[in-house]
Amino acid sequence: MSDVYVAGAGMTRFGRLDATLLGLLAEAGAGALRDAGSPEIQAIYVASMDPEELADEGSIASLFAAYIGRPRLPSLRIETGTSSGAAAFFAAWTAVASGYHDHVLVVAGEKMTSRPTPEVAAILSRMIDPYERSYGATMPALAALVARAYMEAHDLAPKDLAQVAVKNHANGARNPLAHFQRPITVEEALESRFVAEPLRLYDCCPISDGAAAAVLARERHRVRVAGIGHGADHLALRHRDCLTGFRATQAAARRAYAMAGRSPRDIQVAELHDAFTPFEIISSEDVGFFEPGQGARALARGRTALGGDLPINPSGGLKARGHPVGASGLAQVVEIVWQLRGEAGGRQVDARVGLAQSIGGLASNNFVTVLEAVA
Amino acid sequence: MSDVYVAGAGMTRFGRLDATLLGLLAEAGAGALRDAGSPEIQAIYVASMDPEELADEGSIASLFAAYIGRPRLPSLRIETGTSSGAAAFFAAWTAVASGYHDHVLVVAGEKMTSRPTPEVAAILSRMIDPYERSYGATMPALAALVARAYMEAHDLAPKDLAQVAVKNHANGARNPLAHFQRPITVEEALESRFVAEPLRLYDCCPISDGAAAAVLARERHRVRVAGIGHGADHLALRHRDCLTGFRATQAAARRAYAMAGRSPRDIQVAELHDAFTPFEIISSEDVGFFEPGQGARALARGRTALGGDLPINPSGGLKARGHPVGASGLAQVVEIVWQLRGEAGGRQVDARVGLAQSIGGLASNNFVTVLEAVA
Repeated sequence: MSDVYVAGAGMTRFGRLDATLLGLLAEAGAGALRDAGSPEIQAIYVASMDPEELADEGSIASLFAAYIGRPRLPSLRIETGTSSGAAAFFAAWTAVASGYHDHVLVVAGEKMTSRPTPEVAAILSRMIDPYERSYGATMPALAALVARAYMEAHDLAPKDLAQVAVKNHANGARNPLAHFQRPITVEEALESRFVAEPLRLYDCCPISDGAAAAVLARERHRVRVAGIGHGADHLALRHRDCLTGFRATQAAARRAYAMAGRSPRDIQVAELHDAFTPFEIISSEDVGFFEPGQGARALARGRTALGGDLPINPSGGLKARGHPVGASGLAQVVEIVWQLRGEAGGRQVDARVGLAQSIGGLASNNFVTVLEAVA
Repeated sequence: MSDVYVAGAGMTRFGRLDATLLGLLAEAGAGALRDAGSPEIQAIYVASMDPEELADEGSIASLFAAYIGRPRLPSLRIETGTSSGAAAFFAAWTAVASGYHDHVLVVAGEKMTSRPTPEVAAILSRMIDPYERSYGATMPALAALVARAYMEAHDLAPKDLAQVAVKNHANGARNPLAHFQRPITVEEALESRFVAEPLRLYDCCPISDGAAAAVLARERHRVRVAGIGHGADHLALRHRDCLTGFRATQAAARRAYAMAGRSPRDIQVAELHDAFTPFEIISSEDVGFFEPGQGARALARGRTALGGDLPINPSGGLKARGHPVGASGLAQVVEIVWQLRGEAGGRQVDARVGLAQSIGGLASNNFVTVLEAVA
């Protein structure tokens, strides 16, 4: 298997935007290509969760290639729900690692705000086990079940969850591409309305538009893809043997660490899938940073803040950078690339090895990617 | 890059079926796994063009893994319009060729007949360039433009197109899985109603349900993936420099032959994308079997019939086996595998090297795969 490097990275502003899905993908893609020094690309991998229903566009891969004036570049679309961006990065990585392609452009985006929120919620509900969905389960409702189980098992209070939002909004305030760029207080978070008890508005990521992009290359660049893992678990929450950790993340992390020859102790910065605040805490345990039940304590002690020993979600995470579903998995990788290259501006941390973890559905289809700065 | 073999193949009956999309995918997948000797699979690659709008199902990859009781198998969905089945085979191939996975299950399917035909047509129209679509272009209308250009350039009569349908229906009559299993006459074809002049009903593939599956392996099996190519061209017909050949196929074929160390003369059986009768003729030239303009002559002489020197679409092709859009690209590969293994029953031909060619959209996103029997 060939070594694969990230030759370029790009990203749009995230938020409630006027741009179309194609416009967003094109802006991110152009940024990544420029950053990579405009190499000759052999293929395009496109991630978008549901452009048909969210943006009224189909055949999105071919359409994107045509839109950017590269119609003869072969293109593919990859989809795994909310981890689609990470999935496209993985699929493109296999194409380069196999030696089949030398340079591949990966773009990932979603246009969500042009549909009314109830329609978006219905589309997102496609990721829920059909039987559980038939009883009215929504993504926040299922996340609330997980939150309750975790809070009960590890004696957490609502303010412990709120700390995730406070940290990530503080980070987002330093990220000019973030959806939310305003710090919030614990009090604001705890006073926000319930979405699905115990989760309040500030425990949930926003609905966002946005896109991210990366160029993968076999030739040496400053950031190497050291390890990559793909893990899965029961779609139905009721079939799982554990609600306080996500086996899909744990399996993906094991594979990524084994491939990288790394352990959790080597990771110096991470982007974790905080679509709901408890998910950041759970994910920080699933990837092995902290023992089960210790994630919230590490957070409370400031260890995962920008100035801590293991900064998590310096970008603001899904919570504050925003969550255009198909884009997020790749946006995380882009943030880690920028951090490892020292290009993260006011949110820069000191790191040579970073990790991105993306959740598909309610943690049924997850990815973990380990990236390293090359000396 | 590791050698990759097809360890198993499976397929459902194609046609207007009662089964659900998940049921079809599961039946095909179980067949391929059984055929492969039930190896330990590391991942599932799923192709479906638009399960959200055609079958009201999302997150189809995770849903499929759960449905077959393998929820902890990582899964991905791949989509390139009507070539999605070939695209998933390609993406899975890169995963195995890279050495990342040892065994991968690829399933491809579509459930189309539960939606009224006008709705299906509107969904298929997503594959058309938006500007051309805004003028009312449909897939058959654009195929008719291509047919007219080709017929004019090479002096073809409607009966020359009808010969494709007659040959493929004759083949379909020998395929117990085909949507249509009744031979037709040239007269019947020429008397059928116009869909988009000069294309009549019998020049067009049906709307079908169905699924196909394959298991890819790094360990040696009886059929090897010798070459694989992915090519693209302008989405908009008006931007192309040629309407009588498809550059996307030509580019894919060049890459597949180069990788296989083969030339068109080595191919002994082929499955070509005959969604419309002229496409089989054009494709037979694009992959280099015949000089431009000579495809119809070769057909008329019986060279591409079951008893000819280069049988094309022994399965019946999209025309008679049917065209569940996301499934077809993989169904072609399955047919070639069966032919190379001598398991094609009443439609068996004598071949050690075969080729499958799949068209995405109106030939904007195409794949060519060369398969070889291993001594």
